[in-house]
Amino acid sequence: MLSPMTENDRYAPTPEDQFSFGLWTVGNPGRDPFGEAVRPQLEPAEIVCKLAQCGAWGVNLHDNDLVPFGSSAAERGRIVAAFKKSLRDAGMVVPMATTNLFSHPVFKDGAYTSNDPKVRAFALRKTMEGIDLGVELGARTYVFWGGREGSEADACRDPRTAISHMRDAIDFLCAYVKDQGYDIRFALEAKPNEPRGDIYLPTTGHMLHFISTLQHEEMVGVNPEVAHETMAGLSFVHGVAQAMEARKLFHIDLNAQRIGRYDQDLRFGSEDLKQAFLLVRLLEGTSGGQRYGGPRHFDAHAYRTEDQAGVWEFARGCMRTYKILVERALSFDSDPEVRDLVAEHNDAEIDPALTGYSREKADRLRALDLDADALGRRGCGYERLDQLMIEHMLGVRPA
Amino acid sequence: MLSPMTENDRYAPTPEDQFSFGLWTVGNPGRDPFGEAVRPQLEPAEIVCKLAQCGAWGVNLHDNDLVPFGSSAAERGRIVAAFKKSLRDAGMVVPMATTNLFSHPVFKDGAYTSNDPKVRAFALRKTMEGIDLGVELGARTYVFWGGREGSEADACRDPRTAISHMRDAIDFLCAYVKDQGYDIRFALEAKPNEPRGDIYLPTTGHMLHFISTLQHEEMVGVNPEVAHETMAGLSFVHGVAQAMEARKLFHIDLNAQRIGRYDQDLRFGSEDLKQAFLLVRLLEGTSGGQRYGGPRHFDAHAYRTEDQAGVWEFARGCMRTYKILVERALSFDSDPEVRDLVAEHNDAEIDPALTGYSREKADRLRALDLDADALGRRGCGYERLDQLMIEHMLGVRPA
Amino acid sequence: MLSPMTENDRYAPTPEDQFSFGLWTVGNPGRDPFGEAVRPQLEPAEIVCKLAQCGAWGVNLHDNDLVPFGSSAAERGRIVAAFKKSLRDAGMVVPMATTNLFSHPVFKDGAYTSNDPKVRAFALRKTMEGIDLGVELGARTYVFWGGREGSEADACRDPRTAISHMRDAIDFLCAYVKDQGYDIRFALEAKPNEPRGDIYLPTTGHMLHFISTLQHEEMVGVNPEVAHETMAGLSFVHGVAQAMEARKLFHIDLNAQRIGRYDQDLRFGSEDLKQAFLLVRLLEGTSGGQRYGGPRHFDAHAYRTEDQAGVWEFARGCMRTYKILVERALSFDSDPEVRDLVAEHNDAEIDPALTGYSREKADRLRALDLDADALGRRGCGYERLDQLMIEHMLGVRPA
Amino acid sequence: MLSPMTENDRYAPTPEDQFSFGLWTVGNPGRDPFGEAVRPQLEPAEIVCKLAQCGAWGVNLHDNDLVPFGSSAAERGRIVAAFKKSLRDAGMVVPMATTNLFSHPVFKDGAYTSNDPKVRAFALRKTMEGIDLGVELGARTYVFWGGREGSEADACRDPRTAISHMRDAIDFLCAYVKDQGYDIRFALEAKPNEPRGDIYLPTTGHMLHFISTLQHEEMVGVNPEVAHETMAGLSFVHGVAQAMEARKLFHIDLNAQRIGRYDQDLRFGSEDLKQAFLLVRLLEGTSGGQRYGGPRHFDAHAYRTEDQAGVWEFARGCMRTYKILVERALSFDSDPEVRDLVAEHNDAEIDPALTGYSREKADRLRALDLDADALGRRGCGYERLDQLMIEHMLGVRPA
Repeated sequence: MLSPMTENDRYAPTPEDQFSFGLWTVGNPGRDPFGEAVRPQLEPAEIVCKLAQCGAWGVNLHDNDLVPFGSSAAERGRIVAAFKKSLRDAGMVVPMATTNLFSHPVFKDGAYTSNDPKVRAFALRKTMEGIDLGVELGARTYVFWGGREGSEADACRDPRTAISHMRDAIDFLCAYVKDQGYDIRFALEAKPNEPRGDIYLPTTGHMLHFISTLQHEEMVGVNPEVAHETMAGLSFVHGVAQAMEARKLFHIDLNAQRIGRYDQDLRFGSEDLKQAFLLVRLLEGTSGGQRYGGPRHFDAHAYRTEDQAGVWEFARGCMRTYKILVERALSFDSDPEVRDLVAEHNDAEIDPALTGYSREKADRLRALDLDADALGRRGCGYERLDQLMIEHMLGVRPA
Repeated sequence: MLSPMTENDRYAPTPEDQFSFGLWTVGNPGRDPFGEAVRPQLEPAEIVCKLAQCGAWGVNLHDNDLVPFGSSAAERGRIVAAFKKSLRDAGMVVPMATTNLFSHPVFKDGAYTSNDPKVRAFALRKTMEGIDLGVELGARTYVFWGGREGSEADACRDPRTAISHMRDAIDFLCAYVKDQGYDIRFALEAKPNEPRGDIYLPTTGHMLHFISTLQHEEMVGVNPEVAHETMAGLSFVHGVAQAMEARKLFHIDLNAQRIGRYDQDLRFGSEDLKQAFLLVRLLEGTSGGQRYGGPRHFDAHAYRTEDQAGVWEFARGCMRTYKILVERALSFDSDPEVRDLVAEHNDAEIDPALTGYSREKADRLRALDLDADALGRRGCGYERLDQLMIEHMLGVRPA
Repeated sequence: MLSPMTENDRYAPTPEDQFSFGLWTVGNPGRDPFGEAVRPQLEPAEIVCKLAQCGAWGVNLHDNDLVPFGSSAAERGRIVAAFKKSLRDAGMVVPMATTNLFSHPVFKDGAYTSNDPKVRAFALRKTMEGIDLGVELGARTYVFWGGREGSEADACRDPRTAISHMRDAIDFLCAYVKDQGYDIRFALEAKPNEPRGDIYLPTTGHMLHFISTLQHEEMVGVNPEVAHETMAGLSFVHGVAQAMEARKLFHIDLNAQRIGRYDQDLRFGSEDLKQAFLLVRLLEGTSGGQRYGGPRHFDAHAYRTEDQAGVWEFARGCMRTYKILVERALSFDSDPEVRDLVAEHNDAEIDPALTGYSREKADRLRALDLDADALGRRGCGYERLDQLMIEHMLGVRPA
Repeated sequence: MLSPMTENDRYAPTPEDQFSFGLWTVGNPGRDPFGEAVRPQLEPAEIVCKLAQCGAWGVNLHDNDLVPFGSSAAERGRIVAAFKKSLRDAGMVVPMATTNLFSHPVFKDGAYTSNDPKVRAFALRKTMEGIDLGVELGARTYVFWGGREGSEADACRDPRTAISHMRDAIDFLCAYVKDQGYDIRFALEAKPNEPRGDIYLPTTGHMLHFISTLQHEEMVGVNPEVAHETMAGLSFVHGVAQAMEARKLFHIDLNAQRIGRYDQDLRFGSEDLKQAFLLVRLLEGTSGGQRYGGPRHFDAHAYRTEDQAGVWEFARGCMRTYKILVERALSFDSDPEVRDLVAEHNDAEIDPALTGYSREKADRLRALDLDADALGRRGCGYERLDQLMIEHMLGVRPA
């Protein structure tokens, strides 16, 4: 039985929210490095049905979440047809798909970056098939998470060769998509480590740079994940903002994580509420910048302590906390005191001299009368600003 | 008195090694957040003289390491002339210079990314003057470390605005250099945090991407620092390799650091010898890739427990460990067993199909007979490879 | 001018809250490793007056926060008399005092653990004088933070010797207090690193064990600090709980910190609201356990971006967030659904067999009919529980 | 085929080295959170035989490594008899045994600290049986690793209750051992997190304190693991030293780990060679302190990239690097320059005044003529000391 908590309230999810979950998230049976599965494996059709009941809009998948590794074409056909029917019945879409390039032992030393050309070939081929599947299901985004593209014994491969192999693969697959006339974009997902000691292109920043070196960079963006940047203690919000500023935020993986730990994939908002608030604020554009228009994908799973009922509580909690934080972001950014504190300091004389170099502007800068000591004495008011943010988050300030 | 350790031996530094130190490194008086200076401030001329005696080739500086903040033009002139003389006397060069945009309170909320256009103007102007100074001293690389370009109260500024302001500043300064006809390149240095809660463009990866968005990206590269990437637990070697692969490694800051701590700037090689070994191997190209041709700059300082004699031990230790590791990298990469273990697996049939998509290549991949299970059973031999590396490092394997 | 935010509201601090600040916290001038002070040094009397206006109850100090290093007895006398008067005028108390054993170069390689007996002697003597000062000011707790008791070059000293020296010092000082007839207890404060590479007895756990080896362990407890345990990514709440369970929580340092970073000492509640909530809940005993009866000390300081007004905003924010979280903890722990979810599972048959071994109890356990698979299938309901906690924190659930 | 690297050389393992491995370490099939097993499951008898060939002395086990969960008494009997035979045949011993309290779903929310008394009863009973098994196999140490004794949703349980439940369990089991007349000691193993968000008693320090609160503390010590303390960025050497100083180092788990990551369990010495060196030096007592006399247990496993041959390379590498480091520790600690640098500064006048308080000693300290500034100016020589250590490690200094 689902909790009555979300009924008839302003935090209930709607299709406009574009909330999506992966088959592998709510379907996660709770196996971990030290223990066996605690929940039975759910059928994709059942997941779709339940997610729809919870208020989700979309469901995402790895190829092998739906079609088992090594299935025949006939099996694949039956499975896909049945899955499409369950999507239609539930009114759900598949906004994103991806390839499992990490579970089978063949990928134990990487897929696109393996030293073995046979493995690289196998990985490319599997991805082409995965793209076909994604397109068939209507996905508009294809995610690449190279979980095994890394090393523990770093002498095994020149990391420059790894990057070069990775580029060859993505260039190849972009051309494949264009050749097929598919309407799908790529979103690359970085992770610093786990399951490999170090994974190549470990952050959204490294990935953005890599994209800038691709043949078809216009069709490739990033899929940042809260947990992955947070593992390395980086500001997730800054990384996402850099992607947005470059118009490269094609998809996003929402969850929660504590810094410096194994990949936790916790319920969205259940750790570091401040970063979660700042992220929602950034994505929703409540402070004035461009809004993110894509899916809000929850790449998380329920605690291993939970039975199936706990899994659906988890799913509803992700969406609910997101919506509570949207409300609070709006309240914060419309607070007059906040607006005062974050107002841009415009200076009609100086501003134009700071962009677009000319010798004249350089001279103008040199001639300015600037009192560094006086400027250094001015307080920024950020303790007040941050405290106001905490109080809006906590619901203490009236909206 | 200097230690006799390095006399007449194969690890003694030579000018060809291009070892450099900053005035602020060996000149560091040992102040920290919890305690006062423990060593007297040395004069630049004395530092130059002592560094030359230790075997260093170059000395780097922030503008205010040499010319105090707020000096008059006349004072500046006298100081610079005297410094040039001490360089000539010692046979030292200034390969790199940079701007101090972090010590004075005016920069307390950033320099190029400050909300206050007056501060941004002041920072730009100070940098132009710093570049003039660097060029006058013969520097070929100008480093940008935006230590205060960040936030603790993240609502204070849209991070996209910060990146945009940063871009304006670097574009402006590139144009300034071109307009002046200077022969100097920029090297941007990333750091994840400290002294700010989060610093924008926190890793070499983020910085490389930022560079790809600049007007004059060809004159801008990176200056990765061991300590800065290591603070976030990222593989320094992978980050440097990504920069090298993109021909963007313009400068490098060598030191040592433990993961997840305050910025330690320890003696090169004194922590994480394996990463240090892998780094030296990468920079020196002993495994076959392109060699890094620029300065080997030690951006480190002696423990606060040391007196002045300890500082020179520290400096000699940095260079000596680097050279020991060069020797070991050569020995490792010429070991036949190692060469066997890391040999590229070439496959005349498959390799050409993996790059440069064509419909025919896609078909060829689809037609390949690949046995995933058999491929997955093959061992990689990496435990052996890594153990060999440890033993070469430890000097157990004969060269 | 102080913010009107806290007037006439239920979150306004009262003396019963026992909120205290250190002279060094609100008096922090904003110097950091990369920059100079941004705020003038305040006089102790002014700090006392302002803290009282903000609603604080107590003020704490290091010896040298009040009496400069090397002051004569006469100077000391004048300073202390004046300070006592300002305390009386403001109605403030000094609940805790401590010794500065880290700023002067004499302590650069430790105080009680220095290799040099002269330094150890100096440190002991300085502490005796500090205790005298603390007692004179009415302090009931004397804190020991051994910030320099550590190493970077770990070969410098056997860590067992360091622990032994530390024990000698604390045993000596306990005996001194007893001999003087002072009514003061010791609270030891752990920190994993910074300013040393590694500090001995790095966590509250290590410190609790160390205390169990002391001659007068009954008069020694711990002073855990949020930032210090959090730097190492440990659960602060679990550490504090272990101390409370052992009746060793003698004092507490409240602030905020992100994992794996330099010591940030941020405004209480400004990072990791969930841990802050759980901590307040633990200290206040809202879930039923024993309540902590000592001072709520804020060992934090304002951002370096702030002027003096920002410092007082910071101080008020610490107290205000604490009180908001008290309210939310009460609301959470009185929610019937929460009480159901966390109810102890009592079992009249089994419970008595689990404590106090006897052969008969062992046999009883062996004879129990326990279905492991069935037990493993039961869900714990923790996703629901945690989501309820988030919602109580955010003020979404009615009290 | 085993590598010829270790034949006939001074680093070949001998029984005197007391090197041991767990069945679960060399028997690890390479499953991880993102992928399936890559190696077949080996039979215990085969592991014993191979370990003996590699030069190991002992083999350790969890109950279910040998006897599958749920086996009948008859099956158990057959398995144990066969295993004893393989031990005799191979000349191997079982120095340590432990209980698997983490794999089965029944333990998903903890074993001794579960909220459910049935689960606690099941865990106690399973441990009694595990102790019986260990004693039958000749084990002298019984390890407790409470991998699931923790939480993600921390409101689920008062951490004080968890500690109290844990104490009840260990007290019960100590009494059981005494009642049975077994000659076996307990060694408690801490870990900060993974597979739980936070594990109770997260470090060796917390565990040492917990032990001090037990009824039979004399029979309980610690089993520190390199990876576990290193995950939290703590100095493993300091933690082990604290245990040794308290005569509580009953067992040790050797492996390697990078800070702030998932539990890696890497080959001993393959990461952080400096800590590995300092650890070997501490355990072997080369610098003069007490030597550790127990097993050198490698709780590590081969990379997932390896086949079975790689597993045995891994095992030999662990032992070999240990022995190389013993050699280097001896060389370092017998270097006259090193001995000079680390010599205790004895002071016949001051030393006696620093221990064992008396009023007279306090007065003597007060009367000492100590020049803090002069003491602060003296350099410690630690850069030289640490560099010498690096050079001994690297084999550059003659022995």
